[in-house]
Amino acid sequence: MPATVLRPGHDAELDRIPTRVLADDSVREETRRLKKQLSRLQERLYAEGRQRLLVVLQAMDTGGKDTVIRKVFRDCNVQGVRVHRFEAPNQRELGRDFLWRAHIVVPPDGHIAVWNRSHYGGVLEERVKGIVPESVWRLRYRQINDFERLLTESGTRILKFFLHISKDEQRRRLQRRLDNPDKRWKFSPDDLTQRAHWDDYQAAYEEALRETTTEWAPWTVVPADDKRSRDHVIAGALVRALEEMDPQYPTVEGLPDTINGQDVLE
Amino acid sequence: MPATVLRPGHDAELDRIPTRVLADDSVREETRRLKKQLSRLQERLYAEGRQRLLVVLQAMDTGGKDTVIRKVFRDCNVQGVRVHRFEAPNQRELGRDFLWRAHIVVPPDGHIAVWNRSHYGGVLEERVKGIVPESVWRLRYRQINDFERLLTESGTRILKFFLHISKDEQRRRLQRRLDNPDKRWKFSPDDLTQRAHWDDYQAAYEEALRETTTEWAPWTVVPADDKRSRDHVIAGALVRALEEMDPQYPTVEGLPDTINGQDVLE
Repeated sequence: MPATVLRPGHDAELDRIPTRVLADDSVREETRRLKKQLSRLQERLYAEGRQRLLVVLQAMDTGGKDTVIRKVFRDCNVQGVRVHRFEAPNQRELGRDFLWRAHIVVPPDGHIAVWNRSHYGGVLEERVKGIVPESVWRLRYRQINDFERLLTESGTRILKFFLHISKDEQRRRLQRRLDNPDKRWKFSPDDLTQRAHWDDYQAAYEEALRETTTEWAPWTVVPADDKRSRDHVIAGALVRALEEMDPQYPTVEGLPDTINGQDVLE
Repeated sequence: MPATVLRPGHDAELDRIPTRVLADDSVREETRRLKKQLSRLQERLYAEGRQRLLVVLQAMDTGGKDTVIRKVFRDCNVQGVRVHRFEAPNQRELGRDFLWRAHIVVPPDGHIAVWNRSHYGGVLEERVKGIVPESVWRLRYRQINDFERLLTESGTRILKFFLHISKDEQRRRLQRRLDNPDKRWKFSPDDLTQRAHWDDYQAAYEEALRETTTEWAPWTVVPADDKRSRDHVIAGALVRALEEMDPQYPTVEGLPDTINGQDVLE
């Protein structure tokens, strides 16, 4: 499935990047296979206990972040996968630099951390809603890049996904939430406020994607109108990254070849 | 009292910077006055609740970090002053980038954080003891500068003090610890190991001071053989920094001029 991995210095013109790619149901089978691979690699990562993977998920409302987390990681062991959901910053978080709350939840050795929204709120929501002035959010691109470079240099691989949906697809999904009694709870009036500022958000995303696509942590734009191709793209990127990281089961010296005849076990 | 505030790009040749400056007892009176000022400024900082001060204390063993914390801050309100002592990194800390454990204890709005040792252990102890290879610790200078720039840009003033003692003075102080029954507990065999690598530590300090003296967070080298001048220098630097930060009591709108006649209070 085609996804756009951005390159440093290139503009991300979101209206030129498709939100939908053709997928048939055979993709589902392929995704299932990738998820199994992902779970095997995650187990190795955990057993090895030396490397870390950080997965950043950003999207407009209904973009599919929650579903991706539920579905793509479902074969993984929750012991080695930590999901962190970023809400609007609370008083404790507002009292520190905006990266503080992100840094405290970075993945430790052997773990995958999945961020549902992220420190990018500092250049997206906080920018569009006017919570911080431009003089503040404009510095944040460099601050984010420095922070992500520190993590990368310290053994953390970073994968950043922007789930790219069209405004039409969002309308359909919001309407479906209202129509479905089991999904109405997901609907928030705030969704409509965000939708009313669709163009501002797209512009903020474009700038963020451009300014924070670095050699060490590029963005991947994922066509997300079709869930099959979306999940396939993400599972594939995770598997490729983990294959490159190539975690190994640790070897333990001095183990007996057999437990037969060991007094302690008799 | 003269102290050496380093400037970016200048070498810190420690053997050319005095460890002792002449001080008479009149300095004590002056320090007492500064400590009172410090406590008044700290109260304003806390009441204002918008700025933060980070004080980093580094020194060779017996350099006086603990005494400075006990004496210089004694008039301050412990509610607004948080002391954090950095030991050798534990397993939880080793599993993340080396700045993680520092970032989680940065001062929040209105607070002073005092770090007894600090993230600089990553380019001092960990370097000299060979805990991390040069390829790792060499990157840390830039990582430290990026981190401190983030803090500064987010409203945290950073003061970094190197308490500079001579090797002779350290010998006297270590001997005094052994001779004094009430101080023997402070003596650790590790102190002698560190002393045996005196020159390596001085070299590591020189490089760290040079590489991490930035416009936003310069180092101050404090002559620390004489405790009177040491405390005076530090109290003075704290007062000057807080005066520049100029915290203000918040004004609250809509307060009554008098509580007389208010029904709720009758």
